[in-house]
Amino acid sequence: MRASYVLIGRTHKRIGYELGYTKKLDRLAELIQVNAKATDGIVTAMRRIYAQELSVSSATLWSSFPSTVRETPIDSHSLSRIREALKHFVRDWSDAGSSERSVIFQPILSAVSTLPAPSRSRSRVLVPGSGLGRLAHEISQLGYDVTACELSAYMNGAFRFLLDSEMTTTVYQHEIHPYAHWWSHSRNTADLFRGIRFPDVIPRLAEEETVGLHLTEGDFLALNAPTPLAGSDSSRANGYDFIVTLFFIDTSVNILSTLEQIHKLLKPGGTWVNLGPLLWCSSAQARLELTLEELFDAMEAVGFAVAGGRDGNDDDEPDCMKRRTIPCEYTHDDKAMMRWIYEAEFWVARKYERQAALVGTSIVTIQ
Amino acid sequence: MRASYVLIGRTHKRIGYELGYTKKLDRLAELIQVNAKATDGIVTAMRRIYAQELSVSSATLWSSFPSTVRETPIDSHSLSRIREALKHFVRDWSDAGSSERSVIFQPILSAVSTLPAPSRSRSRVLVPGSGLGRLAHEISQLGYDVTACELSAYMNGAFRFLLDSEMTTTVYQHEIHPYAHWWSHSRNTADLFRGIRFPDVIPRLAEEETVGLHLTEGDFLALNAPTPLAGSDSSRANGYDFIVTLFFIDTSVNILSTLEQIHKLLKPGGTWVNLGPLLWCSSAQARLELTLEELFDAMEAVGFAVAGGRDGNDDDEPDCMKRRTIPCEYTHDDKAMMRWIYEAEFWVARKYERQAALVGTSIVTIQ
Repeated sequence: MRASYVLIGRTHKRIGYELGYTKKLDRLAELIQVNAKATDGIVTAMRRIYAQELSVSSATLWSSFPSTVRETPIDSHSLSRIREALKHFVRDWSDAGSSERSVIFQPILSAVSTLPAPSRSRSRVLVPGSGLGRLAHEISQLGYDVTACELSAYMNGAFRFLLDSEMTTTVYQHEIHPYAHWWSHSRNTADLFRGIRFPDVIPRLAEEETVGLHLTEGDFLALNAPTPLAGSDSSRANGYDFIVTLFFIDTSVNILSTLEQIHKLLKPGGTWVNLGPLLWCSSAQARLELTLEELFDAMEAVGFAVAGGRDGNDDDEPDCMKRRTIPCEYTHDDKAMMRWIYEAEFWVARKYERQAALVGTSIVTIQ
Repeated sequence: MRASYVLIGRTHKRIGYELGYTKKLDRLAELIQVNAKATDGIVTAMRRIYAQELSVSSATLWSSFPSTVRETPIDSHSLSRIREALKHFVRDWSDAGSSERSVIFQPILSAVSTLPAPSRSRSRVLVPGSGLGRLAHEISQLGYDVTACELSAYMNGAFRFLLDSEMTTTVYQHEIHPYAHWWSHSRNTADLFRGIRFPDVIPRLAEEETVGLHLTEGDFLALNAPTPLAGSDSSRANGYDFIVTLFFIDTSVNILSTLEQIHKLLKPGGTWVNLGPLLWCSSAQARLELTLEELFDAMEAVGFAVAGGRDGNDDDEPDCMKRRTIPCEYTHDDKAMMRWIYEAEFWVARKYERQAALVGTSIVTIQ
């Protein structure tokens, strides 16, 4: 921004000075340093954790990377991913994000709360694309055994920073200025530069072998169905009782592979809870970009039945299980002069007891 | 999209076929041809009009371009500009666009309607960044002499296509499928592929020297203040009585130059009416990216007073002149599962009788 600003003429620079624009550029430079405390903390946590896993020192780990990696300047794509991860601190772990969270979490938490509390500790839940993990944490607070699965190292590093008992010890310990970088749609500088403190609660992973919150860093498509938890008597089949996808399925390169994987990982009769938009990753990358109608057809072809029917008209289901449209936002800035409203779709779908196949234009089940 | 689709495996292709995905790809190819009727018409109109202006034949004009121009394949940037121009047919000249138009046009038309009707034919209005010209047309229908000014050849070609008495002869003559190209956020294929007919009314330019709608194709920053219209007795100064900017000022590379040019082109006491967001063109291009507060400071520095005060609290002004926030959309698709809501700012500002300069941190007028 400074490089652009210096190109204006002397008279305009005088006006810019009187407007306080040069001071604002200086303040941005300071806030970038404040934000860097969080990003440095993330890097420290990541080095230490991955070094522990590899049983080497952090310095040894770092020096083991090729110099091209250690010295590569950050590119604009990485920068935007880092800024996105910072905004997820707000969305997932700050008071400022609570209104956005309540809109998208509440329908999901209501749907998984239909299982009686005593059964929950014997039930596994998977949250693919779990980001900074707040939803997975909330579901684990209901008493479930929850696995958060996230592919992005940007997200995993940021989440590890919160999970780490040395890096994050108290609530509201950290501060970032997540809106300082983009000066459009802003009413005043105070709003633009405001700080957000986090986390509002401190998340911790469960010990190995105990029920609680677990993290798998990797590709959801590579997961295998887990064995049943101890005491799980209702079904001895492998697989998850629930899979919960929030703003996830439209990130699929091949949505059919995603549907098949959700189907494969669920126990027979298991439940898939989804909330999100249909913003397919750019057409060059996404193999198929389905309409909602086509997506429901594909779900039936793969072996899912939408609870309450596609139109949410089946009265045999409680309302909290029925398909509906939920207007919501995503890492929004409530002070900005702009809002992106997703008319996201919520549905609960159950895995057929038997595998389904598509024959002709009708869906039939095969033995 | 077809190139991405063919990369999926045989089993998925079978599901895709059953979903009707291959038929949908075929239908898109057909609709691209339908849309091409409009874009071909635009090119024909442009060639003929510019040939007339240069007193050569259309074929001679075309052959006079270097072969590199004639044979350059269209790039993705041009394609997105063409799609944007097509969406402006919907926004400006279709029934489907009327609700979006009414939200953003009505405040502006109310503000310029405060001038009594008999004075209007002696008053000049400038609409910079006029796009496909509907707002300028509407203001001319109130009785004003209106100059639409637009830099983009994409927009000007499309507007010429409507203005041309050979290309556009009847209402709803043309049809496009403006939402066919982007398959995200769609509920069903019928919505995605729907056709929009236009124009709902037929615009025509005024003859030279007569009061009505005029078009200047070029850069607003290069315009000079016009001489007074015949019969204009209230002020013999050069300049426009009104300048109307709609979704325009944030496209400025240097907003201070834009403010100075609006100031220069207005008559003393002339009126600037603005409605729009503050989505500054990308930081690499925009020299300054001001907050709303800074923008008002800059306006005062350049020589404008906001009608009713910045907070819209001055009761000496009628409500229709007061600064306010107007939630609105921009070339939106009312069937899509996504909405972009701009909290756009509306204001009326008047040019000081005397030039203003900024001294210290306070605004003073100089003789």
